[in-house]
Amino acid sequence: MDINSTSLIPLHQTSTRKRLDNKRETICIFGTGDFGRSLGMRLLKSGYPVVYGSRDPKNTTLLPSGAQVFSHAEALNTSKIIFLAVHRENYEFISALSDQLDGKVLVDVSNNLKMNEYPESNAQYLSQLVPKADVVKGFNTVSAWALQSGSLDASSQVFVCGNDNRSKQLVMDVARSIGLTPLDQGSLLAAEELEDYPLQLFPMWRLPLYITAGLTVFFFLYYVVLKVIYSYVVKNTDQTYLIMISIPNHVFPIVSLILLGLVYLPGVIAAFLQLYRGTKYKRFPDWLDRWMLCRKQLGLVSFAYGFLHVFYSLVKPLRYASYWSQVNYVAYQVQKNTTSELKMEWAWRGDLFYAFGILGFFVFCLLGVTSLPSVSNTMNWQEFRFVQSKLGHVTLLLCTAHAAVLGWNKFLRSTRYKWGLPPGYMLSMVIPCIVLILKLILITPCVDRMVTRIRQGWERRRNDSGNLKV
Amino acid sequence: MDINSTSLIPLHQTSTRKRLDNKRETICIFGTGDFGRSLGMRLLKSGYPVVYGSRDPKNTTLLPSGAQVFSHAEALNTSKIIFLAVHRENYEFISALSDQLDGKVLVDVSNNLKMNEYPESNAQYLSQLVPKADVVKGFNTVSAWALQSGSLDASSQVFVCGNDNRSKQLVMDVARSIGLTPLDQGSLLAAEELEDYPLQLFPMWRLPLYITAGLTVFFFLYYVVLKVIYSYVVKNTDQTYLIMISIPNHVFPIVSLILLGLVYLPGVIAAFLQLYRGTKYKRFPDWLDRWMLCRKQLGLVSFAYGFLHVFYSLVKPLRYASYWSQVNYVAYQVQKNTTSELKMEWAWRGDLFYAFGILGFFVFCLLGVTSLPSVSNTMNWQEFRFVQSKLGHVTLLLCTAHAAVLGWNKFLRSTRYKWGLPPGYMLSMVIPCIVLILKLILITPCVDRMVTRIRQGWERRRNDSGNLKV
Amino acid sequence: MDINSTSLIPLHQTSTRKRLDNKRETICIFGTGDFGRSLGMRLLKSGYPVVYGSRDPKNTTLLPSGAQVFSHAEALNTSKIIFLAVHRENYEFISALSDQLDGKVLVDVSNNLKMNEYPESNAQYLSQLVPKADVVKGFNTVSAWALQSGSLDASSQVFVCGNDNRSKQLVMDVARSIGLTPLDQGSLLAAEELEDYPLQLFPMWRLPLYITAGLTVFFFLYYVVLKVIYSYVVKNTDQTYLIMISIPNHVFPIVSLILLGLVYLPGVIAAFLQLYRGTKYKRFPDWLDRWMLCRKQLGLVSFAYGFLHVFYSLVKPLRYASYWSQVNYVAYQVQKNTTSELKMEWAWRGDLFYAFGILGFFVFCLLGVTSLPSVSNTMNWQEFRFVQSKLGHVTLLLCTAHAAVLGWNKFLRSTRYKWGLPPGYMLSMVIPCIVLILKLILITPCVDRMVTRIRQGWERRRNDSGNLKV
Repeated sequence: MDINSTSLIPLHQTSTRKRLDNKRETICIFGTGDFGRSLGMRLLKSGYPVVYGSRDPKNTTLLPSGAQVFSHAEALNTSKIIFLAVHRENYEFISALSDQLDGKVLVDVSNNLKMNEYPESNAQYLSQLVPKADVVKGFNTVSAWALQSGSLDASSQVFVCGNDNRSKQLVMDVARSIGLTPLDQGSLLAAEELEDYPLQLFPMWRLPLYITAGLTVFFFLYYVVLKVIYSYVVKNTDQTYLIMISIPNHVFPIVSLILLGLVYLPGVIAAFLQLYRGTKYKRFPDWLDRWMLCRKQLGLVSFAYGFLHVFYSLVKPLRYASYWSQVNYVAYQVQKNTTSELKMEWAWRGDLFYAFGILGFFVFCLLGVTSLPSVSNTMNWQEFRFVQSKLGHVTLLLCTAHAAVLGWNKFLRSTRYKWGLPPGYMLSMVIPCIVLILKLILITPCVDRMVTRIRQGWERRRNDSGNLKV
Repeated sequence: MDINSTSLIPLHQTSTRKRLDNKRETICIFGTGDFGRSLGMRLLKSGYPVVYGSRDPKNTTLLPSGAQVFSHAEALNTSKIIFLAVHRENYEFISALSDQLDGKVLVDVSNNLKMNEYPESNAQYLSQLVPKADVVKGFNTVSAWALQSGSLDASSQVFVCGNDNRSKQLVMDVARSIGLTPLDQGSLLAAEELEDYPLQLFPMWRLPLYITAGLTVFFFLYYVVLKVIYSYVVKNTDQTYLIMISIPNHVFPIVSLILLGLVYLPGVIAAFLQLYRGTKYKRFPDWLDRWMLCRKQLGLVSFAYGFLHVFYSLVKPLRYASYWSQVNYVAYQVQKNTTSELKMEWAWRGDLFYAFGILGFFVFCLLGVTSLPSVSNTMNWQEFRFVQSKLGHVTLLLCTAHAAVLGWNKFLRSTRYKWGLPPGYMLSMVIPCIVLILKLILITPCVDRMVTRIRQGWERRRNDSGNLKV
Repeated sequence: MDINSTSLIPLHQTSTRKRLDNKRETICIFGTGDFGRSLGMRLLKSGYPVVYGSRDPKNTTLLPSGAQVFSHAEALNTSKIIFLAVHRENYEFISALSDQLDGKVLVDVSNNLKMNEYPESNAQYLSQLVPKADVVKGFNTVSAWALQSGSLDASSQVFVCGNDNRSKQLVMDVARSIGLTPLDQGSLLAAEELEDYPLQLFPMWRLPLYITAGLTVFFFLYYVVLKVIYSYVVKNTDQTYLIMISIPNHVFPIVSLILLGLVYLPGVIAAFLQLYRGTKYKRFPDWLDRWMLCRKQLGLVSFAYGFLHVFYSLVKPLRYASYWSQVNYVAYQVQKNTTSELKMEWAWRGDLFYAFGILGFFVFCLLGVTSLPSVSNTMNWQEFRFVQSKLGHVTLLLCTAHAAVLGWNKFLRSTRYKWGLPPGYMLSMVIPCIVLILKLILITPCVDRMVTRIRQGWERRRNDSGNLKV
């Protein structure tokens, strides 16, 4: 088949001139560290000839078999694309190659050890060193491990940015043909963001965890006062051992319920704000936006605390202290020679309490499972909203009912207020009750109709309806 | 462009004439609602110039920075591809632009509020309004949220359909370059299906949930009769509090076991049907096909009920009613001054019962985890079948054994049949036992060999073996 | 824009000559089994004309509507790409078509029933039969089910290998346009590996499961000796019922803790080896490499055993044997007319024990959740390392503390060593304690600084710093 009469042959995705000769283009890699080696291995596997550039080509070991090693200058002549897999501190040597790099695509894959170490991004610094090369930033979010193992166990997304679209496209094609999913992030200005990305440690979790830590410390101290210090001062008994299980098992459910309330509060605030403004075409205040963005994390922390509460509760009958008090109670009763009657109210209350708790935990588990990326991906928007909003509010209702049944009518008895302090479960119910009452108002038919109309683009003043999607 | 003089320049994936000038083609968006804005933002990020068409270009706010706004007529001149992000009710204005749209690609991204609102799909209606444009349906399954946040947390699949393959390809290329995964769904006739898709609410779950609801109601009433009404009529005691924990904890395991049986019943029926017919090249009856398609959902509901059963059982020692009965029993025994012997049979039975239950729950959890999409994706077919079939039948066996040990020899005593009604666990074991017996027959070597041969394409009458895969 | 003068039209990804005529190229499929049918269905859906080749075109049923059926010879004339979906035993017929297959792309999608059934791979055997065709191996890891259902619930990766890059690219383009993710695996030599892949049954799990089985059997027998045989010989009591719950509940936590230690041991060994060698540019010994590769599996088995331990412990108060011993203890105490004091040390110990246990289980659950592929994909490398290394060592610490508190000072009392054998929890703590001590040394600032430098590419002898990534 005559491959020069191109009129009949298909031109494929990465169809460069080289491809027409039935070969992939050669890729050059500077740097023989973990990343350089892993990248070379993967490229070789996908049929790319790989050439390494090294300061000391003779003494370079551990390279993947099939790759060639030359000096830097020789190596870059073999290829249009050069991956620069060296630390920023060693970029200097590249200036000497500046002329040879004219028109080449230089891919900066570097990461720093901490954020804001340098005034400009590594990629921008590189493009100042070799202004004639087209610098593309990318691959820095991919780990050497992911390249070696195939992309199943690690994210296969490759963020790419650069000032020259064609060069960027070349790099994205390479990424795609080794099984990665390239994502264009715009010009080289985005390099700073890309370089910060792998250095972040759960940025979305920071605020939720601070809130959780604050609430946890507060309620822990609150219960130390209520249980340990009060006992010591008033009854002169040593109850310090309660800080291991008993007090945490008050703190966890209380904080969990408050956090769950905080997950659904911004949604109802937003709805009332839209009702008040009569339009959805106004930005929410910044604090509300930020709050809404960390709802998932708040919900997961709330779930984690709920989970701990479940197991802290279930070990109760195994604990020595409860075993001891049960034995003593029976002995006391036998010695008094009384048989107690089954109190119907107590039986109802206890069982209601546990039933609400278990069902709440169960629906909470459903919420947790559906928030796993792979599960939520299988749902359409309608389904996701049903789960996260409807089931979410059911969870809140069940958990609040769980707390309310615990309280029952005890809040009427003044003996329950040690030193005038209300029991923690009362405090925990404030936010959930506010959310539930506001939600109840929002789902009354007339209010609901208004909110739906606003969310479909209707405006109270001018009715501009050329808008799509809620 | 003379594609023979291409000898030196690479032609890339989306290599239009514009791309050779080192720019992406301009994309036009009609509609400035949430979806239009989010789409524009994402396109801009990936390097596409974006132009919005608006009725009132002067007063359009909240648009992403970098985008231009023109009147509809001006906007569509800038681009070959126009995304129409307005509600169907507002399509009328487009008729006036009919001539200008000649040869353009018009992407209908609209969704309706409910199914079957209109006689034809929105996309088909649009193509009647502007017959000269190439209408492509797509992107309607992607949420504005997914476009804004990057595709990590939401499905990145974009279903696309249209009558013109080249236009469809253009739209698919755009989807791909903003990091989505386009999937061709055929001609514009498929638009109706695509528009229905985001309006569906767990269609596969409907049948399993109906079956579950039916069984749950039946067994709940059955146990209300056995426990509450029987007590009230025969012993004149009020046991209504049992409906909170005690009765649900009979209903959950019973329904769970029946559902688990229903998961594996269609498989053995299908195998026997193939054995009887002597071929696999005949369709199964419709009811069997439908049944087999909802096995995963049946299994997950069964697991959910099993989960509830576990926690309803574990709270037992925490409940007031069991505490009370235990205290009374001890007091009674002390007063009678007897010490009971450890009954070996009881110890064995009880421990066997719990061991089977926990192991069954554990294997069930394994099944649940491996049915998560991201986990099952890492398994090959062999492994998936091993888990879902082998481990599945082990689960069924363990759970049935759990129920059987509970029963032990009690079914022999007539006092257990209140009003002649058998205890629920007996009813729950019928289907699982049938499945296990049939399965036992199927795994005997001679039957197994026959089934394997049939599944490999062998036929009893004519032996046509040119077929692959089970 | 004049779309008829092709000089201006974009050339897209799969832009063959046919595509310019606005049609996808025809695909030919030999074999009408499950796989052939499902593949045809999917291709038709994506707009490819599909032609089946069959020995008996008249009597071929169950084919997807829209497909044509011809004899083999006629069918292959319609298409450049032929999918061969027949078993290897039936390849013979293809030799007769050898001349007609000249220059065609023949895709071998076959799988065998067991590994190493034949001396060479099916694809290589095929390329010997028809040397003029370009044989490409691929699609064999995709199930018929995944093709039918869309790729959401099954892996969408398609491994492809072949000697001719252009043919391979054609096949990869087809894969991509039906929504799959093709991955080039190199030349046809890789076909053997690809054919083995779907026949493997959890290859990475083998070693961890063998280790687990060994440890489980050993400790089970150890406890049968300690609990059952010792009781029988020394006290002459029958304790065989303990093998159901009580003994497994000693075995599970012990093996779980040992396995958890084995997860983190290779990491500290590797760090000390690098410290000793003063470089990271030397391969680890083979056994260490293999050990490090199965850490995830070891961790998951450890988690599974921990999970079982939790539930075996939680049923304790439900068991007849513990109920019986509690009742007897109370009765005994009442008859002696004593009231016991709450022993503070016991209360502390018990609560510490349970608190460590629950917290350890909780962090272990976090580890488990973050090792789900879809969750770990959303984390960057920094975050993944934080979770798997930091949280992992915290888990190990908590679980070891859990065991240590159980032991307390009991190891001092000689009565605890039945027949001179130490209790199992002591044995279980050996490896975790070694890991924790070594880790403690590694995180002291001076050692930590040295390890970090080595991992950044520094070498004790020659300081070659042109390397990237840890």
